[in-house]
Amino acid sequence: MTEDERAIRGVVEQWLAASRAGDLNTLLSLMTDDVIFMVPDSKPFGKERFAAAAATMKDVKVEAAGSIEELQVLGDWAYLRNYLEISITPPHSAPARRSGYTLTILRRQPDGRWRVTRDANLVTASR
Amino acid sequence: MTEDERAIRGVVEQWLAASRAGDLNTLLSLMTDDVIFMVPDSKPFGKERFAAAAATMKDVKVEAAGSIEELQVLGDWAYLRNYLEISITPPHSAPARRSGYTLTILRRQPDGRWRVTRDANLVTASR
Repeated sequence: MTEDERAIRGVVEQWLAASRAGDLNTLLSLMTDDVIFMVPDSKPFGKERFAAAAATMKDVKVEAAGSIEELQVLGDWAYLRNYLEISITPPHSAPARRSGYTLTILRRQPDGRWRVTRDANLVTASR
Repeated sequence: MTEDERAIRGVVEQWLAASRAGDLNTLLSLMTDDVIFMVPDSKPFGKERFAAAAATMKDVKVEAAGSIEELQVLGDWAYLRNYLEISITPPHSAPARRSGYTLTILRRQPDGRWRVTRDANLVTASR
């Protein structure tokens, strides 16, 4: 595994840990300012809407596990395919389980750190 | 617009025209042999399954229009975000309309031609 691959896997691990911890500041630090998220049945959205959506989730318990199926480093860019299993538990509610794949593009920042810049999220309710 | 951008836009136009014409051979020629397609509620799949699915669509009339919202060339790789509007009309049926976004990664082949290699498709039933 190259140093870049290790660094990118670290970003993904940090992302999942921050999701579980509800640590929005860490999540925001792992994406570029011009990040674009793509999910089904929605227009693509950026960092501000991500933050607004996350703020409404602060009392929701999130468990998230990922399994990277492919990782390609292309100079200062990289893409990865991840399989995610997520459990979302609002207060006083049963957990809702979701699973599916993401196609994520990362970009190396001028400071050398890898950050998520485009993310197509195909995670849906588990069947 | 650079020559690469023009070539990649040409691939997308060819793709949509081949979809409308039901021209599977042209579609297959526009993707790499190791292409991976990602759609909601399915495992990622490759060229063979794409061809098998297309074969079942041969009597279905497809209208497809795209609008490229972003195109980035990264050396021998590129990614684009496309907004698609698709109308699917099986024989003796009313058209079903679908729309949504794709995140597509292309790779320049040794012969210089750009080909689709990863595609996350978030097109769903229109609302």
